[in-house]
Amino acid sequence: MIETVIRKRIEILADTQLQKRVTDAIDRAGITGWTVTPVTSGKGRDGHWREERVMGTDKVFVLTIAAEDKAEVLAEALAPMLTKYGFILSMWDVQVIRGERF
Amino acid sequence: MIETVIRKRIEILADTQLQKRVTDAIDRAGITGWTVTPVTSGKGRDGHWREERVMGTDKVFVLTIAAEDKAEVLAEALAPMLTKYGFILSMWDVQVIRGERF
Amino acid sequence: MIETVIRKRIEILADTQLQKRVTDAIDRAGITGWTVTPVTSGKGRDGHWREERVMGTDKVFVLTIAAEDKAEVLAEALAPMLTKYGFILSMWDVQVIRGERF
Repeated sequence: MIETVIRKRIEILADTQLQKRVTDAIDRAGITGWTVTPVTSGKGRDGHWREERVMGTDKVFVLTIAAEDKAEVLAEALAPMLTKYGFILSMWDVQVIRGERF
Repeated sequence: MIETVIRKRIEILADTQLQKRVTDAIDRAGITGWTVTPVTSGKGRDGHWREERVMGTDKVFVLTIAAEDKAEVLAEALAPMLTKYGFILSMWDVQVIRGERF
Repeated sequence: MIETVIRKRIEILADTQLQKRVTDAIDRAGITGWTVTPVTSGKGRDGHWREERVMGTDKVFVLTIAAEDKAEVLAEALAPMLTKYGFILSMWDVQVIRGERF
């Protein structure tokens, strides 16, 4: 049975325009990798995100995997942006192979 | 340490054509936000989804985050569509910041 | 309350060029479905993935859902590719409806 370790997967729904601020925060948290995936459309909540559909490049998902302590640092660093811009951050435990990379 | 709460993240792989029926069900479940992301290709199971690859706009992922009770309502509402059209629904616990939004 | 069962969701960040080797490994593990989603950009770790941003079709996410034993078989089958090409595999428990399909 292959050995896995537990890491946090963090996913941030962010404005495309502000993507670099998110990835810079990931870098500063000492997390060495991230992936950006496209969003086709969406509907917001509480007026933070637009109620109408957004197309194409307005929003992206920024994904990363990190040890729990770095994930905490990242979540704290991003918290003001979540509030100010209505970004959504969720994180959960995942098993990864070759955990020394993360 | 930043405070997080547990919510359900729900992900539905659905036909692009029927996306609105899924997002309408999300609205009716009292969940105020959702995000749609593109699917490039895929292979189905049990003949529910086509065995050949599908390109571009045939399928999408519809993602949402909700309190467990609303996630249950949504899963029950979507169950007939899952069976009829071969949609796939999976859900899991995630930590979110500012859980009052969800 | 709708009945759900626990399955593993497996996600592999892979080179687009090698996508078929990943999906072939999924097939060989006896898992009958997979979905590919696009990646817009990313930054790697340990030099395995390029440090510069990659655009468009260089990387994809390959997603699948399987019973734990098949997920283990798949993870073991992919482990050499993870090391050789710097692919990232993560997996976690999800609840699915109609678990007999997976």
